[in-house]
Amino acid sequence: MTIAVIHGGGRPNGNTETLTKLVTQNLSVEEVYLKKYFIKPIIDKRHAEEGFPEINDDYNSIIDRILKHEIIIFSTPIYWYSMTATMKKFIDRWSQTLRDKNYPHFKEQMKQKKAFVIAVGGDNPYIKGLPMIQQFQHIFDFIGIQFEGYIIGDANRTDEVTKDPRAVSTAKNLRDTLQTYL
Amino acid sequence: MTIAVIHGGGRPNGNTETLTKLVTQNLSVEEVYLKKYFIKPIIDKRHAEEGFPEINDDYNSIIDRILKHEIIIFSTPIYWYSMTATMKKFIDRWSQTLRDKNYPHFKEQMKQKKAFVIAVGGDNPYIKGLPMIQQFQHIFDFIGIQFEGYIIGDANRTDEVTKDPRAVSTAKNLRDTLQTYL
Amino acid sequence: MTIAVIHGGGRPNGNTETLTKLVTQNLSVEEVYLKKYFIKPIIDKRHAEEGFPEINDDYNSIIDRILKHEIIIFSTPIYWYSMTATMKKFIDRWSQTLRDKNYPHFKEQMKQKKAFVIAVGGDNPYIKGLPMIQQFQHIFDFIGIQFEGYIIGDANRTDEVTKDPRAVSTAKNLRDTLQTYL
Amino acid sequence: MTIAVIHGGGRPNGNTETLTKLVTQNLSVEEVYLKKYFIKPIIDKRHAEEGFPEINDDYNSIIDRILKHEIIIFSTPIYWYSMTATMKKFIDRWSQTLRDKNYPHFKEQMKQKKAFVIAVGGDNPYIKGLPMIQQFQHIFDFIGIQFEGYIIGDANRTDEVTKDPRAVSTAKNLRDTLQTYL
Repeated sequence: MTIAVIHGGGRPNGNTETLTKLVTQNLSVEEVYLKKYFIKPIIDKRHAEEGFPEINDDYNSIIDRILKHEIIIFSTPIYWYSMTATMKKFIDRWSQTLRDKNYPHFKEQMKQKKAFVIAVGGDNPYIKGLPMIQQFQHIFDFIGIQFEGYIIGDANRTDEVTKDPRAVSTAKNLRDTLQTYL
Repeated sequence: MTIAVIHGGGRPNGNTETLTKLVTQNLSVEEVYLKKYFIKPIIDKRHAEEGFPEINDDYNSIIDRILKHEIIIFSTPIYWYSMTATMKKFIDRWSQTLRDKNYPHFKEQMKQKKAFVIAVGGDNPYIKGLPMIQQFQHIFDFIGIQFEGYIIGDANRTDEVTKDPRAVSTAKNLRDTLQTYL
Repeated sequence: MTIAVIHGGGRPNGNTETLTKLVTQNLSVEEVYLKKYFIKPIIDKRHAEEGFPEINDDYNSIIDRILKHEIIIFSTPIYWYSMTATMKKFIDRWSQTLRDKNYPHFKEQMKQKKAFVIAVGGDNPYIKGLPMIQQFQHIFDFIGIQFEGYIIGDANRTDEVTKDPRAVSTAKNLRDTLQTYL
Repeated sequence: MTIAVIHGGGRPNGNTETLTKLVTQNLSVEEVYLKKYFIKPIIDKRHAEEGFPEINDDYNSIIDRILKHEIIIFSTPIYWYSMTATMKKFIDRWSQTLRDKNYPHFKEQMKQKKAFVIAVGGDNPYIKGLPMIQQFQHIFDFIGIQFEGYIIGDANRTDEVTKDPRAVSTAKNLRDTLQTYL
C-alpha cells in the first residue's frame, strides 16, 4: 500500500502539517498541498439537463494522483470548527467526479481506500472539533472509503502541537499502524 | 431591525434559496449571493510577525453590507454534510477581520446581531446535517452572535423542498418571528 | 398500522407528555408509562458463559406490548442533555432481549417498525439536544428500526411547550404524517 | 488533589474498569461502584410547589464521598451509544441536589473540580461515542466542572481493550497528567 496526504492548510509549517509529519516522517508519501493549486468551486449541475460542464483547473490532476494510493490522509487545520474552505472546495467537487464519464469507476476506486484525518485546532478541539469528525464519517460513508482513524491536536502558535502529549502519542500510534500496512 | 441574507449556494433557484424566499418574501432584505463575488481563501497569518496583508477582493465590501443589519440569515445548501466551500471561505476570513485595524469593533458589532441558518440537503439532513448546526453554534458563540434558530429542509431536485412539510412550516414560523422583530 | 408510545418522563402532565398528546390526541395509541413499572438495570452477560439469567420484572411485558405495533414513539424529557435514565434503562435491556431464546425474532420484528422521538428540554434543546437525537439514530440503526422523524420542544414550567411555535407546528406535521399511516 | 472514580458499569472486570485501572493503578483513589448502591430515579419536582421530597436511598452518601475530592473520573461503558442507565440515574439526581437545602453550595463545590471521562464501547466508539462526549461537555458546563479530557476505548470481550493501542496510550497520558496534579 502507498500513502497520499492531502494538505488543506494555508500556513507553511503549521501545526497540522507538523503533526502530520510526525506520522509520515521517513515513510514514502505523495504530498498534495491544495493551496498550491487552482480549484474552482463546484457549480451544482446534478439535476441540470446539460449536466456538469468540463472545468479547466487543477482538480482532476489531484484526483489522478490520489487514486493511485490505497491510503489517504486528510490533513486539515480546524478553522471555525471545521475543515478549511480549501479542503472543502476539493471535496465538494467529488459530486461532479461521481458523474464524470472520464471517471466511471470513481466510487469503486474510492471504496478500496482507507482514510485517516489529522486536524489541529486552538479552541478546545477535542470537543469542538467532533462535529467535523462526524462529518468526515458521513463523507466517507457516502463515498465508501473506510474511515480508519483520526488524530486531533490542540495548538495555536507554530510548533505548539508538539507539546500536546495526547496528539503526539496518537500520532505515533497511527505511524505504527501505517507501517503495518506498508 | 433589518435583515441581510448571505447565500452560499451555487445553483440558481436551488432548494435552499426557495426555502429562504419562503421566509423572506415581501420582507425588505439585503441579499448577498457569495458566488457572484471574488473572495480569496484566508492565508493564516494570526501568528506571523508581519500580520495579515491587505487583500484586494470583494470580501470587505460584503462585510460592510452585512454590518448594517441586525439580523443575518446564513442560507447554505448542505454539500457533503456541511456548508458550501463558498460559505466557509467567507467565514474563514473573519479571522482576519478580527485583527483588521480597519474593523476595530468587528466583534462588538457582530455581538449585537441575531443569526439564523437555513440549510437544505438531500441525504437525511435532519440527522446528517446536525454536525453543521453544531458548528454554526460554535462559530456564533466565538464571534458572539446570538443563534436564534435554524431550518433544515430535505430535498434534491429543484423545488422539492416545497414538498417537505416540516421545512415549510418551520419556515413560516421563522417568518412570523422575523416580522415581530421588524 | 397501530401506535405505541413509550413515555420516559417522571412528571405528571409534563411538557413532553403535553407535546406528545398534541401528536396523538384522538388517535388510538397504546401508552406505556415506564415510571409505573419495575425494570431492573441490565447486568451485562453478553460474553459470560452462562449467558443472561432470567429476570423477574415488568420489562418483558412491555416488550410484548410494543411488539404488537408498527409505529413506536419514544417520548422523553431531556434530562441533562439526554434521555431520562428510566428510558435508558429500558433500552439498555434490549441487549438481553437480542440474546433471549424467548424472543428469537426480536431484531426482525423491530426492523419492520417506524420510530419517532419527541423530546422537550429547557436549556437550548434545539442545539444541546442534538447529540441525543444522533444517539437515537445510532440505536435505531443497530436494531434496524426506521427513524422517521423527531420533535424537539423548548420548555421548563408546566405547559410552556404549547408556547413554542416550532414544536407545536412540527407536532401537527407529525400528527398529519401518522394519520396517513393509519 | 485527590481522585474519586465513579464506575457506571455492570460487569466485574469489564473493559471500562480495566482501562480505568490503567490510569489509576498505584494512585490513591476513592472508588464508587454505582451498581452496588440503591439509587432511586429522580422525580422531577423542579416546578412543584412542595419541592423535592427527601429520598431515602444511597445517593446522598455518594455525593458526600465525591465532594471530598478535586478530581472526578466518570468511568462508564458505552451502552447503546451513551452512558449506562446506572450512571445516568446518578447524574439525573443532581437536579435535586441543586435545590437541596442540605447542599447549599453544591454547584460552587462542583465548580472547583476537574472531570475526566473514560468510556469503552464495541461498535465504532471513536465515532459513535462522540455524542456522549458532547453530552458530558454540556453536563459539565451546566454544573461548572472543568472537563479536562476523555479516553475512548474500542472493545467487546473481556480484556480486549488492552489491545486497543490508542486507548492504552491515551490512558498512559492521562495517568501522567493526574500525577502532575497529585
